[in-house]
Amino acid sequence: MLKIPDNLAKIDLQLLRSPSAFLRSLIGATEIDPVLQEYGAWWKAEGQGISDAVDRAGTPWVTMFDKGGKRVDEILYAPEYWHMLHRGYRAGVLWRAFEQKSLLPSFLLIYITSFYDSGLSCPYTVSLSTALPLSKYGDAELKERFLSKLLQRERPWQGATWMTEIKGGSDLGNNVETSAVPDGGIWRLTGDKYFASNAGAELAVVAARPKGSPAGVRGLALFLVPRYKENGGLNYAIRRLKDKIATRSVPTGEVELRDSEAYLLGKAEDGIYLILEVLNVSRIANSIGSVALTQRAIADALEFAESRVAFGRAIIDHPLLRQQFTERLQDLRGGFALAWEACKLLNEVWKERRPYSDHYHLFRLIAHLAKYWTAEFAVQTAKWCMEVHGGLGVLEEFRMERWLREAMILAIWEGTAHRQMLDALEVIERKHAHHSLLKYVERSETPELRKIVSSIDEHLRLPAEQREGGWEPIVANLAKATAGALSRQLSGDVSAR
Amino acid sequence: MLKIPDNLAKIDLQLLRSPSAFLRSLIGATEIDPVLQEYGAWWKAEGQGISDAVDRAGTPWVTMFDKGGKRVDEILYAPEYWHMLHRGYRAGVLWRAFEQKSLLPSFLLIYITSFYDSGLSCPYTVSLSTALPLSKYGDAELKERFLSKLLQRERPWQGATWMTEIKGGSDLGNNVETSAVPDGGIWRLTGDKYFASNAGAELAVVAARPKGSPAGVRGLALFLVPRYKENGGLNYAIRRLKDKIATRSVPTGEVELRDSEAYLLGKAEDGIYLILEVLNVSRIANSIGSVALTQRAIADALEFAESRVAFGRAIIDHPLLRQQFTERLQDLRGGFALAWEACKLLNEVWKERRPYSDHYHLFRLIAHLAKYWTAEFAVQTAKWCMEVHGGLGVLEEFRMERWLREAMILAIWEGTAHRQMLDALEVIERKHAHHSLLKYVERSETPELRKIVSSIDEHLRLPAEQREGGWEPIVANLAKATAGALSRQLSGDVSAR
Amino acid sequence: MLKIPDNLAKIDLQLLRSPSAFLRSLIGATEIDPVLQEYGAWWKAEGQGISDAVDRAGTPWVTMFDKGGKRVDEILYAPEYWHMLHRGYRAGVLWRAFEQKSLLPSFLLIYITSFYDSGLSCPYTVSLSTALPLSKYGDAELKERFLSKLLQRERPWQGATWMTEIKGGSDLGNNVETSAVPDGGIWRLTGDKYFASNAGAELAVVAARPKGSPAGVRGLALFLVPRYKENGGLNYAIRRLKDKIATRSVPTGEVELRDSEAYLLGKAEDGIYLILEVLNVSRIANSIGSVALTQRAIADALEFAESRVAFGRAIIDHPLLRQQFTERLQDLRGGFALAWEACKLLNEVWKERRPYSDHYHLFRLIAHLAKYWTAEFAVQTAKWCMEVHGGLGVLEEFRMERWLREAMILAIWEGTAHRQMLDALEVIERKHAHHSLLKYVERSETPELRKIVSSIDEHLRLPAEQREGGWEPIVANLAKATAGALSRQLSGDVSAR
Amino acid sequence: MLKIPDNLAKIDLQLLRSPSAFLRSLIGATEIDPVLQEYGAWWKAEGQGISDAVDRAGTPWVTMFDKGGKRVDEILYAPEYWHMLHRGYRAGVLWRAFEQKSLLPSFLLIYITSFYDSGLSCPYTVSLSTALPLSKYGDAELKERFLSKLLQRERPWQGATWMTEIKGGSDLGNNVETSAVPDGGIWRLTGDKYFASNAGAELAVVAARPKGSPAGVRGLALFLVPRYKENGGLNYAIRRLKDKIATRSVPTGEVELRDSEAYLLGKAEDGIYLILEVLNVSRIANSIGSVALTQRAIADALEFAESRVAFGRAIIDHPLLRQQFTERLQDLRGGFALAWEACKLLNEVWKERRPYSDHYHLFRLIAHLAKYWTAEFAVQTAKWCMEVHGGLGVLEEFRMERWLREAMILAIWEGTAHRQMLDALEVIERKHAHHSLLKYVERSETPELRKIVSSIDEHLRLPAEQREGGWEPIVANLAKATAGALSRQLSGDVSAR
Repeated sequence: MLKIPDNLAKIDLQLLRSPSAFLRSLIGATEIDPVLQEYGAWWKAEGQGISDAVDRAGTPWVTMFDKGGKRVDEILYAPEYWHMLHRGYRAGVLWRAFEQKSLLPSFLLIYITSFYDSGLSCPYTVSLSTALPLSKYGDAELKERFLSKLLQRERPWQGATWMTEIKGGSDLGNNVETSAVPDGGIWRLTGDKYFASNAGAELAVVAARPKGSPAGVRGLALFLVPRYKENGGLNYAIRRLKDKIATRSVPTGEVELRDSEAYLLGKAEDGIYLILEVLNVSRIANSIGSVALTQRAIADALEFAESRVAFGRAIIDHPLLRQQFTERLQDLRGGFALAWEACKLLNEVWKERRPYSDHYHLFRLIAHLAKYWTAEFAVQTAKWCMEVHGGLGVLEEFRMERWLREAMILAIWEGTAHRQMLDALEVIERKHAHHSLLKYVERSETPELRKIVSSIDEHLRLPAEQREGGWEPIVANLAKATAGALSRQLSGDVSAR
Repeated sequence: MLKIPDNLAKIDLQLLRSPSAFLRSLIGATEIDPVLQEYGAWWKAEGQGISDAVDRAGTPWVTMFDKGGKRVDEILYAPEYWHMLHRGYRAGVLWRAFEQKSLLPSFLLIYITSFYDSGLSCPYTVSLSTALPLSKYGDAELKERFLSKLLQRERPWQGATWMTEIKGGSDLGNNVETSAVPDGGIWRLTGDKYFASNAGAELAVVAARPKGSPAGVRGLALFLVPRYKENGGLNYAIRRLKDKIATRSVPTGEVELRDSEAYLLGKAEDGIYLILEVLNVSRIANSIGSVALTQRAIADALEFAESRVAFGRAIIDHPLLRQQFTERLQDLRGGFALAWEACKLLNEVWKERRPYSDHYHLFRLIAHLAKYWTAEFAVQTAKWCMEVHGGLGVLEEFRMERWLREAMILAIWEGTAHRQMLDALEVIERKHAHHSLLKYVERSETPELRKIVSSIDEHLRLPAEQREGGWEPIVANLAKATAGALSRQLSGDVSAR
Repeated sequence: MLKIPDNLAKIDLQLLRSPSAFLRSLIGATEIDPVLQEYGAWWKAEGQGISDAVDRAGTPWVTMFDKGGKRVDEILYAPEYWHMLHRGYRAGVLWRAFEQKSLLPSFLLIYITSFYDSGLSCPYTVSLSTALPLSKYGDAELKERFLSKLLQRERPWQGATWMTEIKGGSDLGNNVETSAVPDGGIWRLTGDKYFASNAGAELAVVAARPKGSPAGVRGLALFLVPRYKENGGLNYAIRRLKDKIATRSVPTGEVELRDSEAYLLGKAEDGIYLILEVLNVSRIANSIGSVALTQRAIADALEFAESRVAFGRAIIDHPLLRQQFTERLQDLRGGFALAWEACKLLNEVWKERRPYSDHYHLFRLIAHLAKYWTAEFAVQTAKWCMEVHGGLGVLEEFRMERWLREAMILAIWEGTAHRQMLDALEVIERKHAHHSLLKYVERSETPELRKIVSSIDEHLRLPAEQREGGWEPIVANLAKATAGALSRQLSGDVSAR
Repeated sequence: MLKIPDNLAKIDLQLLRSPSAFLRSLIGATEIDPVLQEYGAWWKAEGQGISDAVDRAGTPWVTMFDKGGKRVDEILYAPEYWHMLHRGYRAGVLWRAFEQKSLLPSFLLIYITSFYDSGLSCPYTVSLSTALPLSKYGDAELKERFLSKLLQRERPWQGATWMTEIKGGSDLGNNVETSAVPDGGIWRLTGDKYFASNAGAELAVVAARPKGSPAGVRGLALFLVPRYKENGGLNYAIRRLKDKIATRSVPTGEVELRDSEAYLLGKAEDGIYLILEVLNVSRIANSIGSVALTQRAIADALEFAESRVAFGRAIIDHPLLRQQFTERLQDLRGGFALAWEACKLLNEVWKERRPYSDHYHLFRLIAHLAKYWTAEFAVQTAKWCMEVHGGLGVLEEFRMERWLREAMILAIWEGTAHRQMLDALEVIERKHAHHSLLKYVERSETPELRKIVSSIDEHLRLPAEQREGGWEPIVANLAKATAGALSRQLSGDVSAR
């Protein structure tokens, strides 16, 4: 258990440097604790170096055509990339969700992964986001055919979630132009996906608009699109990979669908709900991954601060810097509590269908707060950890600048802070989820949280424009207070007290 | 709760997109307004594309040896780099300081430069930081020989400031190990400089330790080191250029001095004062450059927000986003006011010698606040502007992610926030500079600032450890309140049009 | 005039280092000699550094979409690239062909260009290859609309020649699958071009297959395809630029035509002849450029050999190396004579239409010999010049390895040696062009050439398989002997005597 | 005129694609045949992809300093690089030479390696070139201390051979300026090595000049230099890695020796002989590696030619191309015979000391012919194989262009063709080694070879300048004829199946 005594004498660097030990200190030893330890040990010994090399190499190449002129769209990662990637699947980031009938093992494995390579958590997350709707909405034949492939322990198929098109990702209702046309028992999809995470995946869930369906968000449906057609041909083309500043362990591409074979999931008219359920998973994974990245950045900065000497003592012993570490460790604990609560709630509600329960709406509120708050904290902490390193922090040679790049992506994908704030506002306006929240954390509820909830009730009486315009400071307080309250419910203690 | 007044309905994008127009709106048309306009027009039409290409190309190569085996250490920028670089010298970033007998034209030109390429302001700044001590402390022969070269309008010599060594940049007293040995009328320097900005410059000011001088900061002296020895040979070697995340328009290198010919500036025992005076210049330039970069990021984000449509309207018309823009525009004005005041003060005090006046100490306080606050604001704004762009913000293809990289370097070099805070504390403790500050801004002084100054007096009564540990929220408030107060003294109004 | 006296005492390095002086020494001062000198001087002073930077930067980026999501397909060269590119157009590489009513100025300018950047000759060549058929086969309206744009001195439109598809470039008859469908007065083209030189050009000549036309080579036609549709939209898409080992000054892309607006040139049934006429131009340009590149490699190697000392003397004074230089200088003269003759012949025959004259067939034979022989010589010389540099030759830091990369591309595009040999065989078999050749060079004909021509007559009596299988040594001799004979007709003397 | 016999109708692609099978077909199954097979199988399944990734990644980074400011000079290859590297050591490229008391297993393993990655053969070769003189000249203590480390099967120390300095590699006598000063029982070396293969090796053999020794080649001695000093500090610095066009699997650096601890090998006055013996090993390895690379290029080209169709048939069935393949296969056999004979001779003579036997001089002649001829053939074949691929050959996406880059380095390092020719001339002039050669191959001697030897005797009567100047065609014939003669002595037949 990580303690910072009053005299701030000693931060436990060893604990901070191990994601599995850190988890254990907060939630106790879970059933898969040995798995987490072993997986973490592999990362420390081998995976980390691979991840560094993948980041250094930048955007991988795509071989579009083989020498014979056949379109192949193969992504040229170094062989060790695939080794690294498959390590997590083998550990159970996918199959455990079904075998252990709980999403928590997946999120714990994603935590370990993100401590070392937050980008690699993306393939795992989108594969999970593919497997879950398939298992929930797919008929027996689809599951037989595809789900088993995703759940293999060795070299499983990978999933992917492709929603966003060139005009923007927030407003899917207006921006998804990919069309779906029925053709015999299947559908044919045509359109371009502009941010296609895990391009090259064997199976993607794709948002498209069935011909004749209404305009806007109600006209969207969710489809399964395999990489290869039934006849073995490529079912979608990778136009190119995006040159991103980070998360180079996931190939994000522009994907062209051209009469691509597809399978409808659920009912077409429920499509937007299925899409939002997919997003639930990735937002939660983003949250837990953000916390892991934050832990990592702090651990690296602490290690540096313990060895760097200025004005006659290690810089960790300079009072202002020590105070800054202390505050960040408290927030780290809070951020974890928030993200972990979101994981647990998702685990409870993910099988719900419309009409959703209040518990589901509570989950949504906490999910938006967690996505927003943990990513914001990750960015701020990565930035600060660069500063702790002084000039070394901006050199590509060391890892610190990478954590900021990675964090920026976490802050943006799955919806920026702006989006999360407004979505939180919406579930508060429509479902009064802030009251559910207050009730939910009453065990450790603080006067502060109660005050914020009251202020929200008051805020809701404003005209719509002002309600939205003035929302940021309130939602920030709500996120922070909720994190604080949940933090007090954790079994262990990470911060200074 | 913040309000968006009705008159904020329209933000003037045209003004934001032009650094010279923006300056004019705040401080009126200066004497060199036509120069600024022309220089800015050149950047818009030509320089910007060059700067993009330099950033894209990454760290330039160094040719260490020519084919004949002669050590040459030439930095391989594209030819257009030199064209871009010389454009600013020609406009007067250096010679105007002497011809117009004011540093302000230099800082205004640095503002324009930084709006387009904040890294390129570095060569200008360190050249200025070389010319100023040379003009102030150099004897007639040195000035005759070197200063005239720096002040040429066409292809002038460049300057450089090399202090930091491998053990760290904050604590020069303990970390500078470069030795200086007298040899006839000159000195010989031997040591390695780890962050040598503008490596390749024809003339550098270098911190070194004369043999036999006391340990610590009092034993440092400041030397002039030309690129070539009197006999024409290389006088220092560039071991390599640093792979930095940004500011690729300045080659930052590791420089090896080996019995390098050098000329002492001032008296050896005053060295640390000369060094600090050099840092004054670069901190001010860093501040004004940070504001320019911030203006740029906001301008780009605003342009995007005006054209991007979501949920049926341009995203600039979404109330929360508009509120965020509004707040940042207010802070931009405040940041400018703070940085500009620091420029003006430096212009008044830079020729002072020990013992320094209270006015000098006031300058120092404002300089530390400005360096800290403007860089912090630049980072936060660049981050937010990336978020405004959503997924596009993390693509290397567009410029937004660059502004964050550039801003991170501004936040770190010339001393991180941590360093500035402590230096501000020191000048407050020793010189009561906060009282000078309060008096200085009394024209627009606010109750808030008065309250902060009182709280500082109280804070100063705490034991040293607590004084430092608890300093951050106070100094942040002080910076923000000072910015606000100074902002009200500006001639124009930027926040709303 | 370059002389190597018997004692091999002095090779004229100054002459070798100047492409215009070298040309003058061989063909005398042409009408545009001052233009060539000025153009060459510009390259030496400015262009060369730009070219180095373009090569160093590697494949440029393509911006496919602007931030608003509009497809733009803009190629991100550094601004100075465009400056360099337009320099040659301004000098007259295109407009002089029409104004001076001769192709020779164009080829002389291409010679100068290739001495400094053989890749940049490609845009010039394909622009010429676009302008010529347009001027020859286009109706008044097409010429009015497009040719004037190509012939502008400032920022002219660029041309491009897109034939090859994924299945291979030699056998167009079987491999071109791009279809053409008439649509009102225009045509619509759909297909993918795999090696599209000068992707991004404003106007391309494109091989396609009109719907319903016969299979094979007779079913091809040649079309003009502008970059933008009449309504301003993009008329073709650049799928990506190819990562080539060299010629980075020409963007070679994969181009997607999708119902692209096109204009038929000539009669559809003559298409293959128009295509071959286009290839004539680029083969000749390739030949003359290969010679220029060879001159450059030798000049660089000689400069090195004069300054590098081993075993007590400059390596140029080592007898074996000197002998090797001497031989290459003789072959350089021969190669130039061959390529230049091809230029002159093309200039005489390019307006011919079917049925072609014997003079045209003689041109074809010489063109194939020139394309094959000069590129082969360029590769061998560039390789040898690397060896002259020893270990320095394989460093990316110096230019020598670049010349080999450039030469390899010259050896491959526009048809490899294998293709040229067989095409030469074909024109010999069908048109007895070797007899025309013998007659043509009789002024300086040698017994050797006469003997080779006899041996060819004998060779032609072999069965087809053996005729082709055993052809290489004969055609090599033919090329070399022809080069030698033509070399003796040059006004000047470049080799050692 | 060459003929294609009927029995050449089928080239055995399977044989060509397997280096171990190819070896078996030529020299029968050696004792380590199973090792070769297993090692080759590993390369095909895993190593090849790693090698591709290493080549794609370009020059690796060097971390000069850790975050604590300690100089570490660590080379940042991807982790899989080290995996690939250690695979060959484990297979026995080093330890087998001692355990099996024969160099042949090492060269066979180098053959397999070079088929997949000719650059990786360099670390193996220089490690061997370090172990051999250490075992031959080192005293018991040195061997105890260092040799055992080199011969470990798991993670052995690596060796390196550093001779060349900035002024050039051929004329060591004049160009080595590294000085050696005795210091107690050891020596201290100071100087810069410009092409330091396998920079980062734990143990290097280094040419240096003991203080006070005569000028020129007689004043050189050979030293052992470990990476770390006895006190654990770095014993040499890596100034930088060279940006080479190929062989990226060996880090070639510039190395700075500064009072580096060193151990003299043999007697100082014999130094130049020890140095030449070191070069013997690397020249032979270069020869056998060149042949393997050639086999690879042909195999790739053949595979392509079998699948690529033009004019209605696979291009391998076009008579001229088939003829070209046939000739290259014959030469491949000859090249192998020449290189393999050199291996066997080295194995017989490497322990000889001055005065050397005639057998040693025969070895030297064959070694020079082999180094020259096999590298030349590798370059020409790689070039031609690119041409076989047409436009695909110049794309970085496929492997063909890499083989040419690799071959160019083989042609240059360990002495260019020019150097080998002159060294061959010298051993012929001084030792009449051409007569030994004629006698040696008399079993398969041809009239042609006898004729060449006679012509050499005649040539030797020319004055020195002419002897050298006119040597190239003669030595080329000698190499080719020797290769032909030795080829007839091989057990198997590679040219046709």
